[in-house]
Amino acid sequence: MAPTPAWVKKLEPSGPQGHELLAAERAKSNVPVEKLQELLFTKKVIDQKQKVLDVLKSEKVFDKSQNYFAGRTERFETALARAKRLRNLKLKHNWTLDEFRTASELISEPGPYGLHESMFLITLNEQGTPEQRDEFLVKANDYKIIGCYAQTELGHGSNVRGLETTATWDSQDKTFIIHSPHLTASKWWIGSLGRTANYAVVMAQLIVDGKSHGPHPFVVQIRDLKTHEPLENVHVGDIGPKFGYNTMDNGFLLFNKYKVPHISMLARFSRVNPDTNQYVRQGSPSLIYGTLTWVRSTIVMQAGSVLARGVTIATRYSAIRRQFQDRDAPASEVGETPVLNYTMVQIRLLPLLAATFALHFTGKSMMNLYSENQKKMNAKHENANSSRGAGPEETQSGSDILADLHATSCGLKALSSTIAAEGLEVCRRACGGHGYSSFSGIGPWYSDYLPTTTWEGDNYMLTQQVARYLLKSARAVIAGSAPSNDTTAILTSFRSRASIGCAFDILGSSSDLVAAFAWRASFLTFEALKHRDEQGKAWNDLLVDFYRLSKAHSQYMVVKNFYTALQSPETRGAVDQNTLAVLHSLFRLYALHTLEQEGSEFYASGACSKHQISLTRTTTVMALLAEIRPHAIRLVDAWGFDDWVLDSSLGRYDGKVYEDMFYRASELNPLNRITVDPYPDSDVLFRRVEGEGVRSKL
Amino acid sequence: MAPTPAWVKKLEPSGPQGHELLAAERAKSNVPVEKLQELLFTKKVIDQKQKVLDVLKSEKVFDKSQNYFAGRTERFETALARAKRLRNLKLKHNWTLDEFRTASELISEPGPYGLHESMFLITLNEQGTPEQRDEFLVKANDYKIIGCYAQTELGHGSNVRGLETTATWDSQDKTFIIHSPHLTASKWWIGSLGRTANYAVVMAQLIVDGKSHGPHPFVVQIRDLKTHEPLENVHVGDIGPKFGYNTMDNGFLLFNKYKVPHISMLARFSRVNPDTNQYVRQGSPSLIYGTLTWVRSTIVMQAGSVLARGVTIATRYSAIRRQFQDRDAPASEVGETPVLNYTMVQIRLLPLLAATFALHFTGKSMMNLYSENQKKMNAKHENANSSRGAGPEETQSGSDILADLHATSCGLKALSSTIAAEGLEVCRRACGGHGYSSFSGIGPWYSDYLPTTTWEGDNYMLTQQVARYLLKSARAVIAGSAPSNDTTAILTSFRSRASIGCAFDILGSSSDLVAAFAWRASFLTFEALKHRDEQGKAWNDLLVDFYRLSKAHSQYMVVKNFYTALQSPETRGAVDQNTLAVLHSLFRLYALHTLEQEGSEFYASGACSKHQISLTRTTTVMALLAEIRPHAIRLVDAWGFDDWVLDSSLGRYDGKVYEDMFYRASELNPLNRITVDPYPDSDVLFRRVEGEGVRSKL
Repeated sequence: MAPTPAWVKKLEPSGPQGHELLAAERAKSNVPVEKLQELLFTKKVIDQKQKVLDVLKSEKVFDKSQNYFAGRTERFETALARAKRLRNLKLKHNWTLDEFRTASELISEPGPYGLHESMFLITLNEQGTPEQRDEFLVKANDYKIIGCYAQTELGHGSNVRGLETTATWDSQDKTFIIHSPHLTASKWWIGSLGRTANYAVVMAQLIVDGKSHGPHPFVVQIRDLKTHEPLENVHVGDIGPKFGYNTMDNGFLLFNKYKVPHISMLARFSRVNPDTNQYVRQGSPSLIYGTLTWVRSTIVMQAGSVLARGVTIATRYSAIRRQFQDRDAPASEVGETPVLNYTMVQIRLLPLLAATFALHFTGKSMMNLYSENQKKMNAKHENANSSRGAGPEETQSGSDILADLHATSCGLKALSSTIAAEGLEVCRRACGGHGYSSFSGIGPWYSDYLPTTTWEGDNYMLTQQVARYLLKSARAVIAGSAPSNDTTAILTSFRSRASIGCAFDILGSSSDLVAAFAWRASFLTFEALKHRDEQGKAWNDLLVDFYRLSKAHSQYMVVKNFYTALQSPETRGAVDQNTLAVLHSLFRLYALHTLEQEGSEFYASGACSKHQISLTRTTTVMALLAEIRPHAIRLVDAWGFDDWVLDSSLGRYDGKVYEDMFYRASELNPLNRITVDPYPDSDVLFRRVEGEGVRSKL
Repeated sequence: MAPTPAWVKKLEPSGPQGHELLAAERAKSNVPVEKLQELLFTKKVIDQKQKVLDVLKSEKVFDKSQNYFAGRTERFETALARAKRLRNLKLKHNWTLDEFRTASELISEPGPYGLHESMFLITLNEQGTPEQRDEFLVKANDYKIIGCYAQTELGHGSNVRGLETTATWDSQDKTFIIHSPHLTASKWWIGSLGRTANYAVVMAQLIVDGKSHGPHPFVVQIRDLKTHEPLENVHVGDIGPKFGYNTMDNGFLLFNKYKVPHISMLARFSRVNPDTNQYVRQGSPSLIYGTLTWVRSTIVMQAGSVLARGVTIATRYSAIRRQFQDRDAPASEVGETPVLNYTMVQIRLLPLLAATFALHFTGKSMMNLYSENQKKMNAKHENANSSRGAGPEETQSGSDILADLHATSCGLKALSSTIAAEGLEVCRRACGGHGYSSFSGIGPWYSDYLPTTTWEGDNYMLTQQVARYLLKSARAVIAGSAPSNDTTAILTSFRSRASIGCAFDILGSSSDLVAAFAWRASFLTFEALKHRDEQGKAWNDLLVDFYRLSKAHSQYMVVKNFYTALQSPETRGAVDQNTLAVLHSLFRLYALHTLEQEGSEFYASGACSKHQISLTRTTTVMALLAEIRPHAIRLVDAWGFDDWVLDSSLGRYDGKVYEDMFYRASELNPLNRITVDPYPDSDVLFRRVEGEGVRSKL
């Protein structure tokens, strides 16, 4: 690569420098960045993060400078090396699981051990018998075997009952025959399977004596432990490049009448008795649904910080990027205006900034609810049944809360991951042309995040579950048999006032604003109930309504949780009155901007008047943007992303945007190592490739 | 790579096969695919496309099978080889410019000659004097020099006046000194510059005798014509990887007091007299604004087919992908339902299918208007002024139409490219998990298309130009001095009825539906005018309103053009009554779905009642989805994409979705050539790399 000439190295960006502009922004606001950060994460977590970060930064294998340039194979190669090193660092520093997870988050790329360290270990632990845990889990914990979780197939995603892979009990030799009867039975999308795993938990239809018992998990060895070559009658490989997630080896897997021993079927909740050849259920795997709820709650929790990365980058860059003068600016004002001063940029970024806090507090509240309920259920369970192996008996109340939590987490998972994914793309575009460069750091992050909108329940499919739950709750409210929870409370309140109507002061009172969201969700619930139960509309004809309903209910949950968090002693004790006022403006911006976007539903439900919605749009939202604008940089600073984590030219804490863009292009970019022959009538493609000489391709 | 075992090769997808499902879909509808295709493109264009396609398919260099796997350098390498070959094929087959463009479109990837073949040649031709055309254009046409167009800088995109690169006239030696005074002056994002070009048209601030005359174009040699190394005091290179467009070498370029001769400044419209050292303007470059309008019109035109690729892929795959049973299906119905039967999938795909036609007819109408006006202006120009070199004198009426066309093209460019880009992402997600695979063909296409929302005018910035034009037109209407065009016509009509109000039968009458869009756009125009002129609101405080206004006016234009096209004799003569009815349903779906999405604005303007909007949502749109559903496959077939062009497993004409996914993963994927060492305590990363043996990395 031609060295950067000396005369180029002397150049600086024109006008006020990025670091001056960001310093001026930080001087404009009194928001206490550290205190706010501690409110979000706690001092303990922040310190732990810093400690782990220092370790990672000192390790050469985690150097990010070639990440954006590397091709698929190279990226996978590096990711595998990093995964190995991370495992060894965990041992070396005796990291807790929390610290290990922190490290993975800081590295911010999916790795080839990903599914081994999550679903493989969890499934062995939760669904294995003590004997199976001894056989498989001990080795897996020691990385003597590396596993994955093979459920999705080429022809079947969400509908687990439709899986085609079979596991047929052979009563002669007491084995299971794992088989892929069709091409569509091929396991597909399985993380860590493509190149890395030598074991898989395979979900297959259990067939005993000609009768199918539905999908069950089997622990299956797929590659030789020494040569790592696929075993006979196993066809396995990587499924190829994706829109993102290319550091992960998502794989395919087919079996040809492949025999596995009796111990392979994970038998905590059901088994085949090898003596009688009978299928036996034992206990219920309902705790597993708890796990699913937990996973979805973490997605809600993470959505805030996922989005905050994009908002941090775009907000900082918008304070530095200057374009045109304000048309109405006095003639004395010289120079161009930072684009963050334009309302068209503010209306795109600041509601997303508000959303980062809204999602964070909502996720936190979900996690708390989940933990509390889990504690209660475990206590009951231990009292009622101290033996291991049998399934837990749930208490009525614990399971009621779990049902509410389950439905809520479905809706919130869909809403929050959609907000985060689409918000990241809004942030990327708000950076103008430079947002399209990989050095913005937003595009690659967005691409890697996108699958979250599909997995752990497709965001569209999930809304049906929410609607089903809301309809059920509404029926119970009408019948007077409703359990007591937040959902039934808002439905009951709506029903008692439906004929009188409401008069919420959405612009003057924040609690009225929350109530308006509850009102609209309740209105849509009873409307959908009427369509289904009274008018007998087909389920399929209601899917679009159900989608809106789920969104409405989830938006209510976010607004309510944000509001509740701001009222809590924890928050009120953590920051001063001015900062509370800024947070309160963020809450109002999030709620009112959402309300305005969904204006026609709020209006149709009677939750507010046409005039209120019109005022919201033309006046209140614009006023809130102006209130929040001076604090924007400090508010994103409070998310505390280290530059190493963001890996973004545009989002640098010190504002050296252009220097960093230029450095990466001029010094790091490997394409600049080749010199082409530009003429079409030449049969040489490259005149010179650094370290190679001339190369011909034509 | 391990060969696919024989037992795998025998496998087929389960259940009804893809080709059977698509055949059944095609049998359900009578839409005449060929005739519809001819209506869209004409028989001549279709035949020409086929002829060119046959040539491309027979050339090995255009083989696409490794496109999705290749890394950045490899992709650029292939793209350059293709660009060279394409140039030679043009010569060999004596292709017209139209045929050459068709070939580029069929290849569907940006290539390293891209800017040479467009902006470089166009600028030399339009802004050069005869002498300069002799000096530069002849060689450029022969590919003896390869050029690009260097305008955008690291610190300046949309605001051309703010460019920092200078060209200072040196009256001593009669040269221009091209200089980059700051790092932010670096040219950036310049297509074909990074590795390929040896010349550039550089936009620089012309300085004569200490006085700046604004940006002017200079033809500058930047690399040696033999060695292709950068010349002294020139620093040039590729800017690095991007979200897409990675087959193109977008570049950076800096100058250190670099001298170029007098002939370098393109002098058709202004020059420095070397004898007097005076800056001289001659004629007006207004034809160039015509070019900009033309470029934006082609973007509108292309938006339909850009989106149609995604819609074709997602619709075909949704007819093959089956998931769950309809909850209300009779027990006798077995098997899973193609997801295209679910209303939640229909509501995402079918309005986009409608949009493809809406955008196509709108673009076609824009192009026609543009050509007609250009003809008129050229005729006048030739009568008035037959000498070349002086600028064209515009006729009053031609320039009025051009002003309207210019504003309309700004708004439509923004709206149509946003619809296409966001629509593609909707299509990708509608494919579920497999949409995330590169083999879907949507993701890579979407990534390459995204810059269209930013270039030729950022979609947000453009809306200000539209609003400014609409406000100006409204003022003229009030003053009674309005020129006669469609914009002033709808504003005048609104104004005459504003106090009486309107009563549009949006559900019963299609012309009323169009009128409702005109009404709402006019309402928003006069509302914005009141805010600006009467209430004196700051321009910056109105940007969000302007954005909405531009969108509203452009949506009206699309709806109007779609409706007009369906009324035209050309359309009515091309297809039968049944097909016209289907097209009419598409029109109504597009218009009513848009109206419902923007419900609160239509309601606020009084263009329709709350009840009408509610009926639209709950009943009419759902009924239109059901009407169009049986014709969906034939309607996408009418777009006539060859499988070679789509390069998509999911969108194959023959429905062999799973076979193709599997083939690409199992047979083509280079990652499967490596065998890893999976254990963290081993210091070997790869056990075996095909053709290499063991490789260690740790």
